[in-house]
Amino acid sequence: MQIGLIGLGKMGMQLSLNLMDSGHEVTAYDVNAEAAAALSASGGIGVRSLEELVRRLSAPRKIWMMVPAGDVTEQVLRQLKPLLGPGDIVMDGGNSNYKDSIRRAEELAAAGIRFLDIGTSGGTEGARSGICAMVGGDAQTYREVEPLLRGISVAYGLLHAGPAGSGHFLKMIHNGIEYGMMQAIAEGFEILDKSPFEFDYEQVARVWNNGSVIRSWLMDLTERAFSKDPGLSRLKDVVHASGEGKWTVETALDYGAAAPVIALSLMTRYRSQDEHSFSGKVVAALRNEFGGHAVVAAED
Amino acid sequence: MQIGLIGLGKMGMQLSLNLMDSGHEVTAYDVNAEAAAALSASGGIGVRSLEELVRRLSAPRKIWMMVPAGDVTEQVLRQLKPLLGPGDIVMDGGNSNYKDSIRRAEELAAAGIRFLDIGTSGGTEGARSGICAMVGGDAQTYREVEPLLRGISVAYGLLHAGPAGSGHFLKMIHNGIEYGMMQAIAEGFEILDKSPFEFDYEQVARVWNNGSVIRSWLMDLTERAFSKDPGLSRLKDVVHASGEGKWTVETALDYGAAAPVIALSLMTRYRSQDEHSFSGKVVAALRNEFGGHAVVAAED
Amino acid sequence: MQIGLIGLGKMGMQLSLNLMDSGHEVTAYDVNAEAAAALSASGGIGVRSLEELVRRLSAPRKIWMMVPAGDVTEQVLRQLKPLLGPGDIVMDGGNSNYKDSIRRAEELAAAGIRFLDIGTSGGTEGARSGICAMVGGDAQTYREVEPLLRGISVAYGLLHAGPAGSGHFLKMIHNGIEYGMMQAIAEGFEILDKSPFEFDYEQVARVWNNGSVIRSWLMDLTERAFSKDPGLSRLKDVVHASGEGKWTVETALDYGAAAPVIALSLMTRYRSQDEHSFSGKVVAALRNEFGGHAVVAAED
Amino acid sequence: MQIGLIGLGKMGMQLSLNLMDSGHEVTAYDVNAEAAAALSASGGIGVRSLEELVRRLSAPRKIWMMVPAGDVTEQVLRQLKPLLGPGDIVMDGGNSNYKDSIRRAEELAAAGIRFLDIGTSGGTEGARSGICAMVGGDAQTYREVEPLLRGISVAYGLLHAGPAGSGHFLKMIHNGIEYGMMQAIAEGFEILDKSPFEFDYEQVARVWNNGSVIRSWLMDLTERAFSKDPGLSRLKDVVHASGEGKWTVETALDYGAAAPVIALSLMTRYRSQDEHSFSGKVVAALRNEFGGHAVVAAED
Repeated sequence: MQIGLIGLGKMGMQLSLNLMDSGHEVTAYDVNAEAAAALSASGGIGVRSLEELVRRLSAPRKIWMMVPAGDVTEQVLRQLKPLLGPGDIVMDGGNSNYKDSIRRAEELAAAGIRFLDIGTSGGTEGARSGICAMVGGDAQTYREVEPLLRGISVAYGLLHAGPAGSGHFLKMIHNGIEYGMMQAIAEGFEILDKSPFEFDYEQVARVWNNGSVIRSWLMDLTERAFSKDPGLSRLKDVVHASGEGKWTVETALDYGAAAPVIALSLMTRYRSQDEHSFSGKVVAALRNEFGGHAVVAAED
Repeated sequence: MQIGLIGLGKMGMQLSLNLMDSGHEVTAYDVNAEAAAALSASGGIGVRSLEELVRRLSAPRKIWMMVPAGDVTEQVLRQLKPLLGPGDIVMDGGNSNYKDSIRRAEELAAAGIRFLDIGTSGGTEGARSGICAMVGGDAQTYREVEPLLRGISVAYGLLHAGPAGSGHFLKMIHNGIEYGMMQAIAEGFEILDKSPFEFDYEQVARVWNNGSVIRSWLMDLTERAFSKDPGLSRLKDVVHASGEGKWTVETALDYGAAAPVIALSLMTRYRSQDEHSFSGKVVAALRNEFGGHAVVAAED
Repeated sequence: MQIGLIGLGKMGMQLSLNLMDSGHEVTAYDVNAEAAAALSASGGIGVRSLEELVRRLSAPRKIWMMVPAGDVTEQVLRQLKPLLGPGDIVMDGGNSNYKDSIRRAEELAAAGIRFLDIGTSGGTEGARSGICAMVGGDAQTYREVEPLLRGISVAYGLLHAGPAGSGHFLKMIHNGIEYGMMQAIAEGFEILDKSPFEFDYEQVARVWNNGSVIRSWLMDLTERAFSKDPGLSRLKDVVHASGEGKWTVETALDYGAAAPVIALSLMTRYRSQDEHSFSGKVVAALRNEFGGHAVVAAED
Repeated sequence: MQIGLIGLGKMGMQLSLNLMDSGHEVTAYDVNAEAAAALSASGGIGVRSLEELVRRLSAPRKIWMMVPAGDVTEQVLRQLKPLLGPGDIVMDGGNSNYKDSIRRAEELAAAGIRFLDIGTSGGTEGARSGICAMVGGDAQTYREVEPLLRGISVAYGLLHAGPAGSGHFLKMIHNGIEYGMMQAIAEGFEILDKSPFEFDYEQVARVWNNGSVIRSWLMDLTERAFSKDPGLSRLKDVVHASGEGKWTVETALDYGAAAPVIALSLMTRYRSQDEHSFSGKVVAALRNEFGGHAVVAAED
């Protein structure tokens, strides 16, 4: 099947190769001309503009966007919309906020353009060899692109989740769970690291990943990380967050859902981003006031 | 290889069958004579007393205990110790506290008896088809029983973790991580359940378990649970805790390790065990005092 | 000084009496004609419409709104704006979101109307005898109404916090802290309640409120609450939340600030609002799947 | 009334002055001879040994210990016990673990010596001008020393809480609540500090401490701290913990009580004590593995 792809970054390029492996014909555009050229070299058709991309596809066009969520996605959609016609299908495979996806589905529908929000998971490895795809939008539209989606997903890793927004909603919650799972694993190793035992963390991760209740892809990755850097001495303990975790907590607040572990996992990341904690200083100052407790002076 | 097994409960029986599948000869004792008889019927040798168990094994004996941690384990060891001789090996495959295991290793060593603390994971399914085993104790002793351990473990699911206590220590931390992972998954579904979307939870668990970052055995079990009871309407929201989670948090406190997500996962279980929360009443009472906020009277 | 007051509810009536005690002249409107009549009976001037309220005040008018935040505040402002003229001052003493206050200050400024956002704290008692007032807005405007504000605030309980929005911002954060403090106190009594000791909670609250590090108005209220109902048996453990706590957490998320205790205090309230916890069911189901752990059936 | 005091440190010296102000006769011992001499210079009787202390007091002796909890308290009691006789009363005013106090009460009772565990709060200021005292032990014994206790406590700041251990139990829980309250206040200022507003924190603490719901001694101390160092730039964000917070969480675990906010406040302190967080490194490593997310290298 013919597909147009916008965005040949880390994920988009791997997805293109994956789609071509499944026998689909990929025409792709990226702001970076070199990326488009690299795709051409790999058997796809790299193009130089959105106009060219649209022109080369037969109607009803099937276009997959794989660009950064937020402003970039918004801007690309604004440029793309006037180029498309009734019946064309736009799939947003990025990490867009589900509320934006609901709004975009409506805005495009007004012009007869069909929209699917597709939450994807699996990392860059998955993009190449098989992702997990959660799809929101109209059922008939879903069926029309299902062959494409099957081509890039692992078996059972494809779901038509529900109406517009539900795909990105599921992806968002997936990431919230991911934050919690990662933090749980990290805390386990934190305790091991402070214990008097001298564990080999790579071996620990390996044994935990084989036969145990906590075996998981994240534990597999833990093993890999320790195999490369046994004490993680080459890394800083600064953890960034790309949006979905925050949205998950905001959504929990909106619906009055208790999600303490996910909220805490997010806030632990925030804490990690500050070299100094102002709240820590306030508590230290208070202890000093009432108890004359020794305080570590900043110049120490 | 010949092995003596004490305790033919949920886990012990499955382990016995697993050991026999691997070609080992299982002689087993259980306080419940019917369980011993059932083992005999399955190709093993069920015996009627610890004395008989010990008598039937050739020295150096290899004995695996699979009984409830705490008092029962302590009592069985007290009965077993005088029956054994120098060089015999006792393996505790239960969920004992690692501090007890360190003490027991020392106490038995004084009588020349060798001891291994073996944390096991994988549930009843794993006990039958292949567990994850984390072993603490002397390296030479470990090597002597390694064929038995390989026989019941999945590939890569066996680790000599370190000195006495380290096996049960690793199992304890494993369970702490498990608490956090389970809570993270549960919170994700909590938000889904309060959202306006109408997801099919079995399908959600399935898609998340195929190709995604959070694919894991726990997600597999989530899928199974929803396949049997789509809204979990047959269950109460009461979650018990068997000890290791509490020990993990206590250990974190002992070492000054921050493990907020694990601590919270445990306390969420405590909360679930109370029908009414006294702390909730206190906050409600305070709001009533200062703000005249409407309070839900107990008789409502 | 002359002041117009809109909203004679729980807080507004007490504030009016407080203002009159300080020698100010209160003209007030409420949708409920009986409330306006009650004010007239107490020495103020109850009026029947916003138009009458405005007509009776000399320019530049000073109007204090004490109505529910959100839609009601928005609606009243929409009706009020065309009645007012350049130089008039509107003070919002309610629990409005600070973002709304920033927007309203701008919208009113376009018509030459001045706006102050005034976060107030102290409960109904404080409204009568002296509140804490945090004021956001233009410094000159603040100075013009300072006599009114001093009349209803306790000594040192009045602050011009900064530009528009800063008053409600401070009040919001105040409530976030309040959530955390209340939860901390409540958890203390939760542990007392589960301990084998038999404490008299009223006496405990009293001793803690005299001379200790945790003495506070909230502890005073705790004592009062236990004096009326020693075991809080007349209350349900359901705790509602009126908005500022949620906004505090959202603000923390927006600024990447770690506020785990405030977030958790809020989520504990959410949990209290559900009779059954779906997340609890999910964890119970998972334990059942892997361990065959006994599960409490819903019909038990 | 005559009292013997052991320990003239930060708290003990202030308490001695306080007792003398109330007309009591203080005989005191400290390992530091200079402290004893200082007491003599202030109107008390500083002695050079425990033997001298005991000899100078008339039976039944009333002895107040104000020494560090744990080993020191244990050691002093071991030295003191053989010097005392039936009917003598030992009061432990330190921060001992309540389980130790229960045990000590029993051990001393076997020799006819009476024991009271007295949790005290109020900081060094309170020690001088009036503390909060929570007393555990026999009611008759309590009545005999009540005049002494009234002499050093603020009005209503004295409670006979219950049997042996209950005084230190209440003090422990008090400190747990204190941890939570301090963390809540600190998080509030953390958010202020990250907000675009430019608040004067001393003024904010002052307004919050006058008339608001969160007015409290801790807020008073917050104001004082900011008055000395407006941005707390002279402090590090490292917060130590002296034991009671940990015991509170352990007690919560023992009784299955949910105390998430107290647990989290403690763990936030643990986090503050590490320059680098190993758990943070693990999460950073995992993000790097699955997403190729940029990681901050340790050498940056």
